[in-house]
Amino acid sequence: MLEVSRAQSDAADTADFRCIRPSGIARQYLRTVVHMTIAEHGYRPTAEQRRRWLDQAAASTPVLYEVSCTPVGLVTCVADATAWQGWRMSPAGTMADLAGRKLKRGDRVLIDLGEHLVGYLELRLSSAGNPPDSPGRFRVCVFETPAEAADPDTPWAVELSRAWFQDERVTVDVLPTVIRMPRRSAGRYVLIEIIDTSIGWQLVIDAVRMHYVGAAPLLLPAPETLMSPAMAAIDRVALRTLRGCMQTVFEDGPKRDRRLWSGDLRLQALVDGVSFHKTALVQRCILLLAAGTRESDGVLPACIFERPNPHPAADVILDYALLLPAILQDLAARPDADRELIRDLLPLARRQLEIGLSFVGADGLMLPPPGWWTFIDWAPGLDKQAALHGIMVYGLRAFARVAADFACADLAADLVAPTARLVERGRALLWDESRRVVVSGAQRQISWASPAWFALAGIITAAEAADALEHAMHQADAIRPGGPYLMHHVVHALWISDRRERALQLIGDFWGGMVERGADTFWEVYDPTQPAWSPYGDARMNSACHAWSCTPSWFLRGGCVA
Amino acid sequence: MLEVSRAQSDAADTADFRCIRPSGIARQYLRTVVHMTIAEHGYRPTAEQRRRWLDQAAASTPVLYEVSCTPVGLVTCVADATAWQGWRMSPAGTMADLAGRKLKRGDRVLIDLGEHLVGYLELRLSSAGNPPDSPGRFRVCVFETPAEAADPDTPWAVELSRAWFQDERVTVDVLPTVIRMPRRSAGRYVLIEIIDTSIGWQLVIDAVRMHYVGAAPLLLPAPETLMSPAMAAIDRVALRTLRGCMQTVFEDGPKRDRRLWSGDLRLQALVDGVSFHKTALVQRCILLLAAGTRESDGVLPACIFERPNPHPAADVILDYALLLPAILQDLAARPDADRELIRDLLPLARRQLEIGLSFVGADGLMLPPPGWWTFIDWAPGLDKQAALHGIMVYGLRAFARVAADFACADLAADLVAPTARLVERGRALLWDESRRVVVSGAQRQISWASPAWFALAGIITAAEAADALEHAMHQADAIRPGGPYLMHHVVHALWISDRRERALQLIGDFWGGMVERGADTFWEVYDPTQPAWSPYGDARMNSACHAWSCTPSWFLRGGCVA
Repeated sequence: MLEVSRAQSDAADTADFRCIRPSGIARQYLRTVVHMTIAEHGYRPTAEQRRRWLDQAAASTPVLYEVSCTPVGLVTCVADATAWQGWRMSPAGTMADLAGRKLKRGDRVLIDLGEHLVGYLELRLSSAGNPPDSPGRFRVCVFETPAEAADPDTPWAVELSRAWFQDERVTVDVLPTVIRMPRRSAGRYVLIEIIDTSIGWQLVIDAVRMHYVGAAPLLLPAPETLMSPAMAAIDRVALRTLRGCMQTVFEDGPKRDRRLWSGDLRLQALVDGVSFHKTALVQRCILLLAAGTRESDGVLPACIFERPNPHPAADVILDYALLLPAILQDLAARPDADRELIRDLLPLARRQLEIGLSFVGADGLMLPPPGWWTFIDWAPGLDKQAALHGIMVYGLRAFARVAADFACADLAADLVAPTARLVERGRALLWDESRRVVVSGAQRQISWASPAWFALAGIITAAEAADALEHAMHQADAIRPGGPYLMHHVVHALWISDRRERALQLIGDFWGGMVERGADTFWEVYDPTQPAWSPYGDARMNSACHAWSCTPSWFLRGGCVA
Repeated sequence: MLEVSRAQSDAADTADFRCIRPSGIARQYLRTVVHMTIAEHGYRPTAEQRRRWLDQAAASTPVLYEVSCTPVGLVTCVADATAWQGWRMSPAGTMADLAGRKLKRGDRVLIDLGEHLVGYLELRLSSAGNPPDSPGRFRVCVFETPAEAADPDTPWAVELSRAWFQDERVTVDVLPTVIRMPRRSAGRYVLIEIIDTSIGWQLVIDAVRMHYVGAAPLLLPAPETLMSPAMAAIDRVALRTLRGCMQTVFEDGPKRDRRLWSGDLRLQALVDGVSFHKTALVQRCILLLAAGTRESDGVLPACIFERPNPHPAADVILDYALLLPAILQDLAARPDADRELIRDLLPLARRQLEIGLSFVGADGLMLPPPGWWTFIDWAPGLDKQAALHGIMVYGLRAFARVAADFACADLAADLVAPTARLVERGRALLWDESRRVVVSGAQRQISWASPAWFALAGIITAAEAADALEHAMHQADAIRPGGPYLMHHVVHALWISDRRERALQLIGDFWGGMVERGADTFWEVYDPTQPAWSPYGDARMNSACHAWSCTPSWFLRGGCVA
């Protein structure tokens, strides 16, 4: 495919046309200045193009694997000050023990599925005592972590919906019966609490099954032979995390919030490329995002709802949108990528950069625009200017590479000068040569985020990046990553800055720390010094199987070629 | 059919054989003494016979009417000391108002279906605000009465199952959607309480439907032309009550406990005979009861569970079992009755009487046997001897009549003498000629129950019954009926004792009292002096649409021919 495309590029006009079809609008704006405001005439996919993308996405909806899994036994949740978040599980019997129990009002059983699983619970129920002379009612909660299981009753004091709590009630009129829970759940532990039977009969749970579902097979790829046991454990947890998030789209978390987010997708696709190899699913997700392009300005939506019909959320995250070129570049590196699709999407990827460039200030630095969500990381107080500046350059460079790969270099030609200027301005104003640090914002804040993105963008050299990253990591008041998303980029930056051992040490400390603390899948947020921390006000709302935390396997399986 | 049977009886041996087939066992015990103990060799249907009855019952499972009903509007529950149980409903808007409301965490709406309905709720839901970025969860409660609606949160402090509380939770992942509640509910008011959405979106209830289901049509028969408005209102509520209980069996209450009870069936069948005329359903219920005959002694079960397969509850109620002859007698009076079926059941009906007679004491009086449930009525402290004695005679006499009707008089021949003796002993020991009262038990207790059943059994004359009933009704410390089941028998006793005006007055006072207090359907229990009374410890557990309360229509529609 690559060879064919390059051959075609010899006939320049034809290649150019191919790059920007179907609308031809891209040709037009290529001749305008680059430091444009967000032009109303900028590229947007036509309605027909969106429909075609949606059709292509629908055609590549995966058939999910479904595997019936048996729980490993019963557990109880034990308070333990030495355990992560104060709770650990203790064995409390076998499933055969459960089948022998007669459950009545208020009885609780806690079932261990053995590992974090996404799927549909099935309960085979019968009764003991007299024939049931009343309905039976029980509660079924699914928990990802021991601490979540320890406290299913305190209402969540959060702004997010309490309906995320996997807490369903079932009323059965006839026994014996088989109940397949209608909603998918995600977690490792299942609480069944008997709300009531009558005094004449008791509920018996003869069997519990979890019908695993996912776009990835249940069986995880074996670890690479040269991995240390500790790294193999991290790899396994990382792949289990990704597996849980691979449904009919790459979800950010199978418990919460189940949407397709572009920033998470980028990282998931990287790991998928070294593990499950579901290229069609990656492409489906990119198509869904592209089809949801915001009409008013052509910006890529931050996330997509799949149902009832695919549609974008109102959320836009500027730094996520700027990474579309990188997503396409990564996809292009797959041997089975649909190169026509990538070519189709180049104008949209370029459009994101144009929008980004419209937020370059008079001093030549990116400024997180008011009214836009610039994410970067959850850490409170983080100044995001340097990181955003880095991401802008990172996106421009990814675009230049992918455009060249597709023999559409002229699509990126007018971006060369602005890129160089952004690099120059970034070095001049945010790189402190004397202290070997990257600073951000008016307060010249030191954080892990700024050098990471400056390194990834190549604004600073590998040696400079190594120094700046070490400086930030050793400076006590530097703003540390608030979550695995940024931590991934720090590891990536170290990796490409000839600090691979340091990167592996960070993986061992951060992701290995989660494994040591009992992680079955990697968590959305993790700060070893703040076990109860949550961006949502309640740690039970955190997703414990979260897309952006799955990246160690990318490094450990040779995905990151510096 | 009747003529044919009588013709056949001319050949006595053949007729006799027909009466007691298929087992021939009946012929054997007819030659034993009547004052038998509960003989192990007494009549029981064979396994083949039970199967045949079950097959017949299955073949007559009714196709239920289904009608989609629209609620009449919104209401609020208002505390009002002058209202029954302290609560009344006040209008609070139209369904169109509801569709315009954006519902968020904690919001509640209370919907008035307009009348008590049994069926499946359907909710058409959509969202307002941003596209839903979380599941939505809400609670759906269905209430029969305002007082039940006023307090959905206090847990029921009862021994019966709290799962009777019609309180379900629904979690929706995708909107818009149509939810059809999977379980049948019964009631007039529907509470929808939003457990949560997210702050970005609100739930909108575009439409609510109640899909009425029942073996009776939704449209009630028009009142008889000569009914007074007050009596027409009672008749309507009574028929609505029966309608709600007519499903694939005659249930005792569509909210609780939904089972087929023989004592309730007898009264429901009477009212059905003057209203909906579903003879096949009556016969189906009798067959289900007969097929559930207790193996050990041949007693009719008090109630039947329909699902997963028809099977009897462990409960046996002696006074209910003794009424099987009366059930058959009533059925025989229907023009479309299956007379073969009745003939088949005569040995079983006789068996109930044999069991009853085994509990006649040395003094010739029935004694409620220890270890058996003798119901009669809920009233605390009621001495049940006289009533049970009356029911024994009532059953014997019904059997004699139905046996004669089927030209099987010889089946009842040896019961003539014991019947006469029971009447004589009852008069001698429990009829106080000087005071014109029926007494019961060692304490010679005065109650409404005793003279009612003595009158119905014909142990006392109409004139004596009229005096005894009036006496009890005027004696302050006489034990009054604890519920509509016994009240029906008091009305019936007055009716046949030439006190029809008094009977109508009682209907007006008792059932009319419920209508005045807002009854939409007639209640399982009703004591105007004790609004909160419940045999279950919580008035919310009471069934407000209860089979045994539907009988006024039988009197008002000419069913009771004294």
